[in-house]
Amino acid sequence: MMAPPASELGVRLRVLVEDAASAAAQVVTDAPVGAASDDDAIRDLIAPRDGGAPASVLTFEHEHVPNALLADLIEHGTPVRPGPHALVAAQDKIVMRTRLGALGVPCPRWRALPPSVEEGTVALEEFLADVGGQAVVKLARGGYDGKGVRVVSGAGEADDWLVGAGQGGPLVLAEEKVPFRRELAVLVARRPSGEVRTWPVVESIQRDGVCAEVIAPAPGLSGDVGARAREIAVAVAEGLDVTGVLAVELFEVPADPADPAGPTTVLVNELAMRPHNSGHWTIDGSATSQFEQHLRAVLDLPLGSTAAVAPWTVMVNVLGSARPDLAGALPEVLERYDTARVNLYGKDIRPGRKLGHVNVSGTDLDEVRAAARGAAALLMGKDVEHVELA
Amino acid sequence: MMAPPASELGVRLRVLVEDAASAAAQVVTDAPVGAASDDDAIRDLIAPRDGGAPASVLTFEHEHVPNALLADLIEHGTPVRPGPHALVAAQDKIVMRTRLGALGVPCPRWRALPPSVEEGTVALEEFLADVGGQAVVKLARGGYDGKGVRVVSGAGEADDWLVGAGQGGPLVLAEEKVPFRRELAVLVARRPSGEVRTWPVVESIQRDGVCAEVIAPAPGLSGDVGARAREIAVAVAEGLDVTGVLAVELFEVPADPADPAGPTTVLVNELAMRPHNSGHWTIDGSATSQFEQHLRAVLDLPLGSTAAVAPWTVMVNVLGSARPDLAGALPEVLERYDTARVNLYGKDIRPGRKLGHVNVSGTDLDEVRAAARGAAALLMGKDVEHVELA
Repeated sequence: MMAPPASELGVRLRVLVEDAASAAAQVVTDAPVGAASDDDAIRDLIAPRDGGAPASVLTFEHEHVPNALLADLIEHGTPVRPGPHALVAAQDKIVMRTRLGALGVPCPRWRALPPSVEEGTVALEEFLADVGGQAVVKLARGGYDGKGVRVVSGAGEADDWLVGAGQGGPLVLAEEKVPFRRELAVLVARRPSGEVRTWPVVESIQRDGVCAEVIAPAPGLSGDVGARAREIAVAVAEGLDVTGVLAVELFEVPADPADPAGPTTVLVNELAMRPHNSGHWTIDGSATSQFEQHLRAVLDLPLGSTAAVAPWTVMVNVLGSARPDLAGALPEVLERYDTARVNLYGKDIRPGRKLGHVNVSGTDLDEVRAAARGAAALLMGKDVEHVELA
Repeated sequence: MMAPPASELGVRLRVLVEDAASAAAQVVTDAPVGAASDDDAIRDLIAPRDGGAPASVLTFEHEHVPNALLADLIEHGTPVRPGPHALVAAQDKIVMRTRLGALGVPCPRWRALPPSVEEGTVALEEFLADVGGQAVVKLARGGYDGKGVRVVSGAGEADDWLVGAGQGGPLVLAEEKVPFRRELAVLVARRPSGEVRTWPVVESIQRDGVCAEVIAPAPGLSGDVGARAREIAVAVAEGLDVTGVLAVELFEVPADPADPAGPTTVLVNELAMRPHNSGHWTIDGSATSQFEQHLRAVLDLPLGSTAAVAPWTVMVNVLGSARPDLAGALPEVLERYDTARVNLYGKDIRPGRKLGHVNVSGTDLDEVRAAARGAAALLMGKDVEHVELA
């Protein structure tokens, strides 16, 4: 999704792909195959071609990258954005929580568990008692889309992970299971010279730990809470020295636990230092998409307007499909929803896989949401009447 | 510019490029090199790859294509859209004028000149007398961007072309030099199953025979004239059986020559059966761009909304540049004009060459136009203060 704005700005992309049939390789002409963990593949990626200059900048679409190599590349003159000193807070949830705490950013209560079954279990028992009997246990590294996350109500339920942590696997942390009213996300872009821009705060609706739908802006959000969310995002971007796009996922919670229907505030749930699913709405719903803004930011170009192009934009993910192919749904999708902006990723169909998304913008939220859900449902091979009424 | 919407809709593009460094080859992964006049290159282009299916449809970005081959491809089962029976009216201005006349579409007065210097000169003399002493003489085939077009006021001024016409070169026609108030353009898309959609009528500002600027919608256009323009575009698309995007370039002229400041009407100037420079504003200014719509139309998919996303969108072409490279202008362009949508084509700089364009959308036409002109001027290496005040 970075290819169109790169082309428009005259930026030549070179992308390291996991295999030659990957989505990125279908739309980027210079797409060598290699693993993001392979130092040589990354060195080749940024090397000069045909006697030209080396890459102007190295950036990422996920956080699973070798930080030692990145530090070395920077030392030898290749800008790496975001830099490894920032990336580590997106790679390791214990580092993230520690750094956010140091910045004074509000987070759920949390605790790093000692890396042994015995000590870890004791710590988890204490933590469960502190937070009321239920906690979210997470692997510090490697989780995504609901993987590496588990809700527990007994200290024994994390034993397998604690054994791993004691044997060199990722460390484990426990977090308070926050009684959130809903999930929000705020996207911010920051360039090395310091300019920062945020987009409107959105509501993010998860199903089975995976983002299913995003509503921009978050309906009924109080101005204070929206401002606070953006302020937090800017503080995180600046405090961690993030360059490029940063997505901050938030819980909206009652400001006073004793008044669950009263005013709200926000706690930081997760960080992603890259264009993020919660920002796909910007492709069609914002003057500047998160992908264009990321390119501008990592190239230290002035950032673009983040104004919304319509009162509402709703993004619905296409998560798996009962259809043999998605293209076959296009005639009905486009016929029924002429404002639907369909974006298919060129991936093979697998259950629950993010295969694409639909954006719809407009002035009536109910209509916009029904159209986005209906179009995505057709692409997923679902009964659209049922979905629209849901 | 068709690559981004193709990617979004999951349409695999394969494009025949003139050389491996061409703009299209930079953004389309499957881009064999060959000439559009080479039958074998086109047959290879649409042939199945790796045991897959052949191309679903063959379409064009210019009209200089071999019609006999296209007819043969259609006979053997490959849809060609627009078809050669339609394309010929965009390839040959005498065919165009004849067909438009048969459809009752208003055109400037015109005459095909006999293909010999002697007879052609006599005919041109008569025509000049009829139309008041000045005419526009055109080669029937092969002209573009002001090439193959000449204003004459004496019959001898077309001798060189008439010699060519008599020796097998393109035929020549003469047209009335229309005292137009301004130039308009209307874009229409039509799919094989019949659905037709038009975009708002735009004003097109030419300099030295080349489109310099487009204002969408055309400022101050009367509702009647706009409706008439769209009606003509639909009549042409249906009458010539055009599929895909058709651009109809129009002259806005006084309805009564005796009342030059009075109500206006329109005459058809030119046709282009493809996405066209007068429609580049739709990339950022319309719910569906002309490039996406062309893909939908030639694939016989339902057409998208052609609603404007803002009250005004202005497109300004980047025509040549005094700069060594365009990318170097981006910091200043993006800093000064944060609503500017810059689109660079990846072409080498040559004087007057269309190297890119800038779109700006907004609610205040003067501001929008100043921003688009200013951004394009910076890319062209011009003095932006001067241009903004112009």
